[in-house]
Formats: sequence, structure tokens, C-alpha cells
Amino acid sequence: MLNSVTPEFEASLRETLPQAAFRPLTASYLEEPRGRYTGQGGLLVAPANTEEVATVVRACAAAKVGVVPYGGGTGLVGGQIMETGPMPVILSLERMKDIRAVYPDENVLVADAGAILADVQQAAEQHGRLFPLSLASEGSARIGGNLATNAGGVNVLRYGNARDLCLGLEAVLPDGSILNGLTRLRKDNTGYDLRNLLIGSEGSLGIITAAALKLFPRPAAEGAALMVVEDPAAALSLLAMASRRIGGGVSAFELIGRMGLEFLAETMPEVRQPFADKPNWMVLIDLGLGAGQDPATALEELFVEAFQAGIVSDGVIAQSEAQRADFWAIRESIPAANRKIGAVSSHDISVPLGAISDFVAKGNAALADIADFRVNAFGHLGDGNLHYNVFPQRGKSRQDYEHLRPQVKRCVHDLVHEFGGSVSAEHGVGRLKVEDMERYADPAKLAAIRAIKAALDPDGIMNPGVIVRGA
Amino acid sequence: MLNSVTPEFEASLRETLPQAAFRPLTASYLEEPRGRYTGQGGLLVAPANTEEVATVVRACAAAKVGVVPYGGGTGLVGGQIMETGPMPVILSLERMKDIRAVYPDENVLVADAGAILADVQQAAEQHGRLFPLSLASEGSARIGGNLATNAGGVNVLRYGNARDLCLGLEAVLPDGSILNGLTRLRKDNTGYDLRNLLIGSEGSLGIITAAALKLFPRPAAEGAALMVVEDPAAALSLLAMASRRIGGGVSAFELIGRMGLEFLAETMPEVRQPFADKPNWMVLIDLGLGAGQDPATALEELFVEAFQAGIVSDGVIAQSEAQRADFWAIRESIPAANRKIGAVSSHDISVPLGAISDFVAKGNAALADIADFRVNAFGHLGDGNLHYNVFPQRGKSRQDYEHLRPQVKRCVHDLVHEFGGSVSAEHGVGRLKVEDMERYADPAKLAAIRAIKAALDPDGIMNPGVIVRGA
Repeated sequence: MLNSVTPEFEASLRETLPQAAFRPLTASYLEEPRGRYTGQGGLLVAPANTEEVATVVRACAAAKVGVVPYGGGTGLVGGQIMETGPMPVILSLERMKDIRAVYPDENVLVADAGAILADVQQAAEQHGRLFPLSLASEGSARIGGNLATNAGGVNVLRYGNARDLCLGLEAVLPDGSILNGLTRLRKDNTGYDLRNLLIGSEGSLGIITAAALKLFPRPAAEGAALMVVEDPAAALSLLAMASRRIGGGVSAFELIGRMGLEFLAETMPEVRQPFADKPNWMVLIDLGLGAGQDPATALEELFVEAFQAGIVSDGVIAQSEAQRADFWAIRESIPAANRKIGAVSSHDISVPLGAISDFVAKGNAALADIADFRVNAFGHLGDGNLHYNVFPQRGKSRQDYEHLRPQVKRCVHDLVHEFGGSVSAEHGVGRLKVEDMERYADPAKLAAIRAIKAALDPDGIMNPGVIVRGA
Repeated sequence: MLNSVTPEFEASLRETLPQAAFRPLTASYLEEPRGRYTGQGGLLVAPANTEEVATVVRACAAAKVGVVPYGGGTGLVGGQIMETGPMPVILSLERMKDIRAVYPDENVLVADAGAILADVQQAAEQHGRLFPLSLASEGSARIGGNLATNAGGVNVLRYGNARDLCLGLEAVLPDGSILNGLTRLRKDNTGYDLRNLLIGSEGSLGIITAAALKLFPRPAAEGAALMVVEDPAAALSLLAMASRRIGGGVSAFELIGRMGLEFLAETMPEVRQPFADKPNWMVLIDLGLGAGQDPATALEELFVEAFQAGIVSDGVIAQSEAQRADFWAIRESIPAANRKIGAVSSHDISVPLGAISDFVAKGNAALADIADFRVNAFGHLGDGNLHYNVFPQRGKSRQDYEHLRPQVKRCVHDLVHEFGGSVSAEHGVGRLKVEDMERYADPAKLAAIRAIKAALDPDGIMNPGVIVRGA
């Protein structure tokens, strides 16, 4: 059993750390973006460096006090909020936000875990490089949290998720020891892959304190198009055609359904609709090409071949960077429109690529049997990752359906499981989906996860209640 | 402590498995390519399916008998050979060699762990797709072994190593339970990354029985060039220029030193030398481009820019597929030439990209202080992975230097460690480098590896002595 932070514990910690490490616990540390979790409080500590993180964790390990790592606070599954149990230490990385070094010739950047994602992107850009992790909350999310949750975003198709963008990690393990794994090596086959074990462990096996990240050349020319397809299966055929024609140059391939466009028209009429008649499905294709290649030409040629093959029925190709930004504004406004409508239940799911069309059809039909929902399915088609979100009918509010939420979630997740999919494609498990893990995860996987947690964190101090229930 | 296989154990296993699972233990199971390890024997079992693998492992777990997983037997670090200790079961995957399914639209192939790498490549090709893992032993290596050792090869720069090419795994864990992780999902953030923990664990945490692998579109056009550079630093500048100009189209970027060309002239005069005067350093650049792009033109333009910048001094661009094959024959003949010369000590190392030139200079100087060696440094420059191999002077043999081998190895590995590099970039630890792990690995990493091993394999039955010493 864990213990609560006590005045004695705090006093003792104050003797070993500089005064600056202690900050007031404002409300922002106890809230999260979707308003589903509220923290109970705790002792906020903001160490200035890795040694201080280790000092805090050692103190917590000795006193069996829980540690909740806190990055940018943008997580969507309650991983940063501990609502119940003994009062924890909330360990914020906010003071460890330096870009430690950039090695442009090696395409490597080393950052403190508390560096804001947008700052990492900017530091790469200043050296003529690209750090491709990109997601809605990049202005406040911190790279340590991005790695702890294996964040995804819009460029996964081309560059991979956070896991794929990390070469090495420095971390403080649950016993307070420092893992010095901040390698810039592209290849290192010496022993178990602790880096990937920590990435995606959501703070439950240790606290990431710094990371060596992969950079990429910036594309010489970028372009985008919107193309209308009949259904997600046609979108997949278009993606295969684009990959064959353009190779690795396809940076993003985002699926947008008619409901998303209707939500935009309803809540954000200032966003310009790309087609006079809202199509049932369209895709946003984004290209980044090398020297001497013209994205608009490549997209035109793709459109012609796809049109002749009956895969696309309409399309528009960005003629300027401004028009490309307009296309992206459509995609990026959909989450905001969703929030204005107010979801009954949101699902960050993935299914095998070939099953997406079938999944959407079956999911919509099953939900219609429950109530008169509106479903907005959109997302990263090339990754098989759909944000499959369920909304009230026009004129009703989410409160009208609140009692149905568990049933909706169960219906969608059961179907995902039936299709061999994942109930958390990119947001993680956090505290929100621990029950789902218990219901859907392979028993051998669950047993191995519990054994690893017990081996590395025998007292269960690291982010208690995340991924697996406390001992 | 483990127990030896006994006649009673074998008799009991024969009652639970079909007769076909038992094959004679021929010498080939007790040898390895470099002739440094000789197996002591054991009971060879070749299960027909995953259930039978689980049956064997459960029996071994109950009797505390060691299990040595055996794939293609091509490993270079003794991971497949147990020389000492209680007689183990040698569990060969040779009868589990089916391609289970191909999903061309999803770019996914599912194979049994015993499938030969070349057969996986061919199955992908039959569906118009590419499985890019490619290495010298691909005609006999099995995909399960490739994954267990996180194999590298020549296409890592573009497509990643075995780890990056795997979406999901099925495996039998040390307690005989079956991990059903054979997902085709591109994104799945539900719990710890057991896939990547098993990949690279070299059979010490379980036996991979099947894998879902990533496929890629086949490039529309391929091309290659050899370009002469002053040193590895210039090669790195050339790679940066190529990446900027050609983006993701650079499939391979191999560094070849003068000594490799001299070894070829000495032992394989039939291999045509590309330049009249052997250059100190050259690189083999291989491109795979999309529709409408011409690799020869791209390489010409790259050469012109690099020549004008003073980065390259000479070059030749393949004008046909046959000439491209000739270029590759040079690169691929170097390991054979090395074997004919006979290495005193071979090192599969990596250092940060920016340190390669410095490392080679310091390494050569340090070795010259020991004896009159010839050093052949070559490898996958874009990955920072050098095969840094030390040979006898002309007219002498490896036996003349045998007594210096430990000193040579220690000298090279100490230097690698000093540069923040890895003493096993792609071959793994096996039994060969357990001592190196103990000497060079971060203490927190070693402790975590031992804790995970103890948690998942408390009796230490899985590939005893690999990566970490037995309990």
C-alpha cells in the first residue's frame, strides 16, 4: 500500500531540494482537456534537472509515496490526473525545458523532457531540419509526455509515431536510479529494448527526463490536395496508388467524412467548404518532395490515374501554400467543431486497414440501434487510426444521451475487438481505459505487463493506477 | 539451477508430441558460421505449430530444462549454441515455415517464425510488394531469428531494422503461455511494448512463433552509383546532400575503404574494380524512386553538386541494372574476401555519425601500436554502423596474431565506449558479448534487464547464458 504525502515528507524533501523546486499547486495541474478527471491534490515538485528528479523519486520510493509525472497536461486518458488514493507527489517537468544540443549533420536533437513540442520543432527548423511529430496540442504538450504516451499525430504515415522518432532516453527509474540511455546511435543491439519499454508506459515504469530525437531533411517542396472518394475502401486504394507513384513522399493521408463537414458548417461557418456538395468521404493528401519535383504535378497525375480507375470522382489541388493551409484548416478544425457539438463518446481506435469500411458500416448500424446518434469518423487513414466519435442528434445535447455513454463505448469497443483492432490507437490507456485493457487484452500480455510492472516498480509508486491497477 | 534433458523427460515429451517433431541432432545444429562455438548436444525438437512449441516450453518449464531456440543458425554471436551447462532442448523452428497470409492492400504479410527470409521477400514480390530486410545470409536465415536478434542489413537507412518492419508478434513465453500479439495494426497504444521487448531479446524472454510484417511498394525505378570521397566525414556530407535532394529515395549508403578493395584484388580478382586507382574511401549509393523519376539523372545531379562542393572527386553511375548489380557485387564480396584473409578480430560497432572519421583514425592508430595489422572498415554509414575488422599483415595468418585477439577486441571496444558507441550494432549480444555488456552497459540498464529477465523467466530456462548470465 502507498502512503500519502505528509508534512514530514514535504519538510524532508524541502531540505534536500532548492526552494525553486516547490511551486503552488494551481488548479491547472488537477484538470484535463476533456473535463472527465479532477485531481485530488498532492505536493507539486518541479525539479530543475535529472539529479533532482532522482532525488524526488528516491524519497518517494523510501516513503512509498506515489509519483504522478506531469508534462504538458494535454493527455486525453487521465494519465496525468490521480483522482483517488493516497496523496501523491505531482512531479512536473516544466522547469526542464532546454534543447540540450542539436547535431544537424547527424540529424539528431537532444532535449529535456519538459521541452514544449513546438519548441523542439522550431529548434530543428532553425538548423534547417524537420522534427515531424505534429499534433493539435503541440503548443503546450511536452516531449517527455509525447514519448511517455507514444504520441501519434498527422505525420505518422511517413515518419512514424513518437516511438519511431526517438533514438535514446534518459530516465529516472522507480528506485531512483538514472538510466543513461541518451544515445545518438542509429543502431544498438545490446540487450533488451528499455527505450521502447519506457515509451508508451505512460509514466508507470519511470520518468523520462531527456531524449535524443531523430531529425529529417525538410522537404524541398510541399503540396496538398483534397480528393473525393466513395468510401474508406476507395481511400485505401488511392493511398496504395499514391504510395506506388510517389513513394515515401506522402506525408499525410487524412480521411474526412461528411459529418465532419456538416459539423463545420454548423459550428464554424467561417471555414470554407471545399466542395459545393458535401461529399460522403474525402481525403486530404499532403506531399513533401525532394529537389526538382513538383508536388502539384505529382498530385495532378495521381488524380488523373485515380479518376480513370474510378477511385476518385472529384478533387482540388492546392495552387499555393495559402490554399494548402486552407485544406489543413478544414482537417484541423474538425476537433474544435466536435467540441462545440459535444460528443456523447469519443473513440480513438484502430483496425486493420482493409477492415475500415466494414467497421464504419457495422459501427454506424449498431449505434443506430441504440439511439439517433450522429457519428463523425475521421482520422489518419494510412495508420488505420480512426477517431470514431458519437454525437447527439441536431437539437439535442450530450446530456440527453449521458446515460447511454457506457453502452455506446462498449458497443464500439466490442466491435473494434471483434475486428482485431485497438481501443487506444494513439492516446494511450491512462486511467480511462484500464478496464478496457482487462476486458480486451490478451491474457498473456496482461500477465507479462503486470510482471514487468512488479519487477521494476515493486511498490507501485510510479503513476499509480495507470495501465494496470495498483497492487 | 537448470536440469539436463533426461531419458525420462524425452520419453514424456514423446508421449505428448507427434513423432515428426523429433529429428536427429546433426552436427549443423552445433556449429555456427565463424566456428567459434561448438554445441555440446541436447534434445532436438522441431514443433509443427505454435501449440506444439507451447507444449515443449511448458514441459521444459516444469522440468527446469533449458530451451535453445534455433532458427537458421546464421547468428554471429553464439546465441544459437549452448556450449556448457545442463543439456538443453534445442527447439528448431524449421517446420514452421509457412507464409500464413499476405494482405497486399494493407502492406502486411504474416509469416511463421521459421520462414526463410528470402521466401518472405519472394512472397512479397509475388504480390507486387517489397519486404526490405536484406542481408548476406537471407537464403538460410529465418524471420523469427531475424526478429529475435533485431537484424539490420543494407536497407536500414531507408526502411529501418527488423524491429521497424514488424507490426505484431505471436510468441511462446517462458511459462509456456502463448502471447497472441499478431496484430496487423499500424497503431496500438494499449500497454507496454512487449513486441519490441521480445525483438532483440535473442530468445531469452520467449520464442517468437509468427510475425506480422510491414510491406512496402516496390520502387518504380532503381539506380546506383559509386562515388569517391576523401574520408568518412565527406561521405556523411554527401549523405546529407543526397537526403536533402532525394528525400526518402536513398535506399542504401554503404561505405567502402581501400583495404576492402585491396582484399578483393588479393582474394577475388574476378570482381571488377570500379576505379583504376583504388580510392581511400568510396560510397555505394542506391536509390529507389517513384513513378516518373529517373535515378541516373538524380545521381548525376547529386554528383555535380557534390563535385562542385568539393565533397566527391570521382564517380561512376550505373547505366543499367547489370552495372548496378556489379556495384553491389563489390560491396557484397567484401565479407567473403574478409573470410579468405581471415580476421584476427571482427567488430560490429556503431558510433554517432559525426564521430565516424575520428573513430577510424584513432582506432587505426591504437591498433598500429599493438601490431602491424591491416584494418578493413566498411559498412552502413547512414546508420553509423561500421564493420571494423582487424586482419593479419600480408604473408602472415590469423594464427600469428591469435594471442593478441583479446587485446585487440578490448582496444576497439574501449574506444567505441569512449565515443558513446555500441559494441554490438546489429549482431546482438548472444553469448559472445555478455562480458562486454557487464563492462560497458549502463548499470541501471543492466539492473533493469536482469529484473525483467527474472520476472518473465524466473527459472532462467529461455536460451540460458544469452545477454545476461544465468541465475
